[in-house]
Amino acid sequence: MFNRSKVSMLTDLYELTMANVYFETGENGKAVFNFYLRQTEKRNFFIFAGLYELIQNILSMKFSKEDIEYLKSLNKFSDKFLKYLENFKFSGNLYSVEEGSVVFPNEPLVQIEAPLIEAQIIETFLINSLQLPILVATKSARCYLVANGKSLIDFSLRRTQGFDAGLKVAYASYIAGFSGTSNLLAGKTYKIPVFGTMAHSFILAYQNEERAFEEFTKFYPKDTVFLVDTYNTLEGVKKAVKVIKKLGLKNFKGIRIDSGDLVSLSKKAREILDNEGFKDTVIFVSGGLNEYKIEKLLKEGAKIDGFGVGTELGVSADLPYLDCVYKIAEYKGKPIVKFSKNKITFPYKKQIYRTFKDGKIYKDVVSHYNERLEGEPLVKEYIKDGRLVRDIPPIKDIRDYTLSQLKLLPDNLKDINKYHKFLPEFTPKILDTIQKLKIKYLG
Amino acid sequence: MFNRSKVSMLTDLYELTMANVYFETGENGKAVFNFYLRQTEKRNFFIFAGLYELIQNILSMKFSKEDIEYLKSLNKFSDKFLKYLENFKFSGNLYSVEEGSVVFPNEPLVQIEAPLIEAQIIETFLINSLQLPILVATKSARCYLVANGKSLIDFSLRRTQGFDAGLKVAYASYIAGFSGTSNLLAGKTYKIPVFGTMAHSFILAYQNEERAFEEFTKFYPKDTVFLVDTYNTLEGVKKAVKVIKKLGLKNFKGIRIDSGDLVSLSKKAREILDNEGFKDTVIFVSGGLNEYKIEKLLKEGAKIDGFGVGTELGVSADLPYLDCVYKIAEYKGKPIVKFSKNKITFPYKKQIYRTFKDGKIYKDVVSHYNERLEGEPLVKEYIKDGRLVRDIPPIKDIRDYTLSQLKLLPDNLKDINKYHKFLPEFTPKILDTIQKLKIKYLG
Repeated sequence: MFNRSKVSMLTDLYELTMANVYFETGENGKAVFNFYLRQTEKRNFFIFAGLYELIQNILSMKFSKEDIEYLKSLNKFSDKFLKYLENFKFSGNLYSVEEGSVVFPNEPLVQIEAPLIEAQIIETFLINSLQLPILVATKSARCYLVANGKSLIDFSLRRTQGFDAGLKVAYASYIAGFSGTSNLLAGKTYKIPVFGTMAHSFILAYQNEERAFEEFTKFYPKDTVFLVDTYNTLEGVKKAVKVIKKLGLKNFKGIRIDSGDLVSLSKKAREILDNEGFKDTVIFVSGGLNEYKIEKLLKEGAKIDGFGVGTELGVSADLPYLDCVYKIAEYKGKPIVKFSKNKITFPYKKQIYRTFKDGKIYKDVVSHYNERLEGEPLVKEYIKDGRLVRDIPPIKDIRDYTLSQLKLLPDNLKDINKYHKFLPEFTPKILDTIQKLKIKYLG
Repeated sequence: MFNRSKVSMLTDLYELTMANVYFETGENGKAVFNFYLRQTEKRNFFIFAGLYELIQNILSMKFSKEDIEYLKSLNKFSDKFLKYLENFKFSGNLYSVEEGSVVFPNEPLVQIEAPLIEAQIIETFLINSLQLPILVATKSARCYLVANGKSLIDFSLRRTQGFDAGLKVAYASYIAGFSGTSNLLAGKTYKIPVFGTMAHSFILAYQNEERAFEEFTKFYPKDTVFLVDTYNTLEGVKKAVKVIKKLGLKNFKGIRIDSGDLVSLSKKAREILDNEGFKDTVIFVSGGLNEYKIEKLLKEGAKIDGFGVGTELGVSADLPYLDCVYKIAEYKGKPIVKFSKNKITFPYKKQIYRTFKDGKIYKDVVSHYNERLEGEPLVKEYIKDGRLVRDIPPIKDIRDYTLSQLKLLPDNLKDINKYHKFLPEFTPKILDTIQKLKIKYLG
């Protein structure tokens, strides 16, 4: 749905003015840039996501005639450089950890090794492509960890920040443990299961709850999830039962409660349903949910089988942006570091080695790419000389992989309420280089 | 860049299952739905935005063969209904306040009057289309109100929640007082001025600040804004001056400071520049800015001429989503109200009348659309029987209109730090109807 070739222009002006200078001064040696997250006390771990869309965007990136004309109209670029852009094709390498991996701040998640100009001008859309999927996959995983196997559905589309945010949220929540989405375009695009119930407006249009229930059920006898809280929730549950019986159905899929005290209402609704013999009918809830509320509801004994999670997931409300950066780490074979207050960048093309203890993540060590350490290397090559060199797995496999990654989390990192610091170590080779460059540049 | 025809599928499954039932039961009378915001103490006013993109999306909405095939594969829709969707074209009316208007919670900002099915299935993308532009135009206006005429540039693209969020942010910030954006695709798409400086990676690639400055300036002698804080900010300022003198230039555009104590650094940088005779050279700052920090910097006497505002603007960080809804208000000529705890919907197709006192907004009154009250009616017809009936103004005019609207704000509503409640009144006709329906449905 998004025209991929347009990502080339989804960039900051300065990327192209800098590139123009690089081009004209012949400053286009091999560079390594790395994308990583900075520490935040709001998350104990992150789920890495967005890689495959990023790869597809990088590989299909190009400047159209129209783009070139627009750039020419800015009077900022040489004709030769515009000619270069007209023939632009990414020719470099991309290294990354696997989609769906558990990752931590300071780890080189994506690394680009390419001529300086290429590595530079993809910066803006590279960061943009990854930020929201990581935010949402991470928040979804937190929901999944506290949901105790109850089903989770993405209901966020209407309140995501734009249209492709809606797609990114549906994708990222699905790979991180959600069962599906209400978003039809995401269902179609990614082959994600789609789910839905009914809206209050449906009941209000018929101006008769019972009739609305009945009309809907006739068309969806196996699928109907009755929205029961338009007038009075428990009366609504009884009306749903009445309609099912009237239509002579043996069972029905579920009810949805979208307001009120969900603990007490779900318990009472469960009682009504059980007493009427509908033990398999599910109770589904929605309305301002997030991982904290899901955990609380279940701890308080709510009788809930599934959660529709919307707005707060869709915008990652408690952490709506990531402190994530894309920094130069190596140029013409030499390590590069930038120093500023409380912030540092990490030199070299890098590898991450992960070790485990009792089947749980124990330690991550970031090394120069060519160092060999014990543990599992997490960084893999995806694009080599502008060509994809690894298969992109089906979404179901990505989801399975993510869920298997969550099993590797030690208990303290699974805690959604308390921050536990987990950062990778860096090898002496990297730390020594930082120290040497610090002395060289800052004295 | 976004394929508009795809908005039809940017919808929740239940919109189409409900529509299927409406279709099959012949329940497709004329409905009025209204979009409005609920109260929040985080904003004293809102800037309405997103209307023109919404209109274009509604008018170009259609279901492709591929969409229909996907929907068929879900086994949830009758063949007749799918046929109906295949020929779908919006045939209704759209009423709205003007793009860029100052608006308040509970006011009917957009109203759709259409056959029930049409009004229902556009719900999801209607809300989605408006939410982010309103959030960002509002936050941008808050920046504008405290910036005292200093220039504001949108730097958010890399951290917006997805790609079209980046476009929406550039558009919404521009109409609400920003001078432009770094986003090239937005510049091209909306004809917004584009701006840029240079990145730390540029300095680091040359590994020599002075040389990097010099190379850049050769290509952009009139445009260069030197990023001076890669190593030591004030040394950086001096190097910029040195390069300008070396190249024999009479003046230069500016410097950018992206870190450190911006108050003291900007004062000292100003001193250096003034002493060297560069009184017109601007000082531009960036790095984690928002309206609160801009206000604080200027109050503390920072010598700043312009602000690059990024992440926090782009995701509206202190209010990343709006409590905004699209509710049925009338069906088959009858008023509709939904009651739930602390929340209410407002019946009828409506008008808003605004009165002024000493040139400032004094009172808004929401009435039935056909009532005639004193004041300026804010709701206008944009789409009639599926056709656009008002011109969409050029973006410059929208921006002028928004800025003229900000002048109508009384001082207390301009306060970015303290909440002042301003809500519209409703006419007796509306209030009486709510009361009557309350008795009818809830006893």
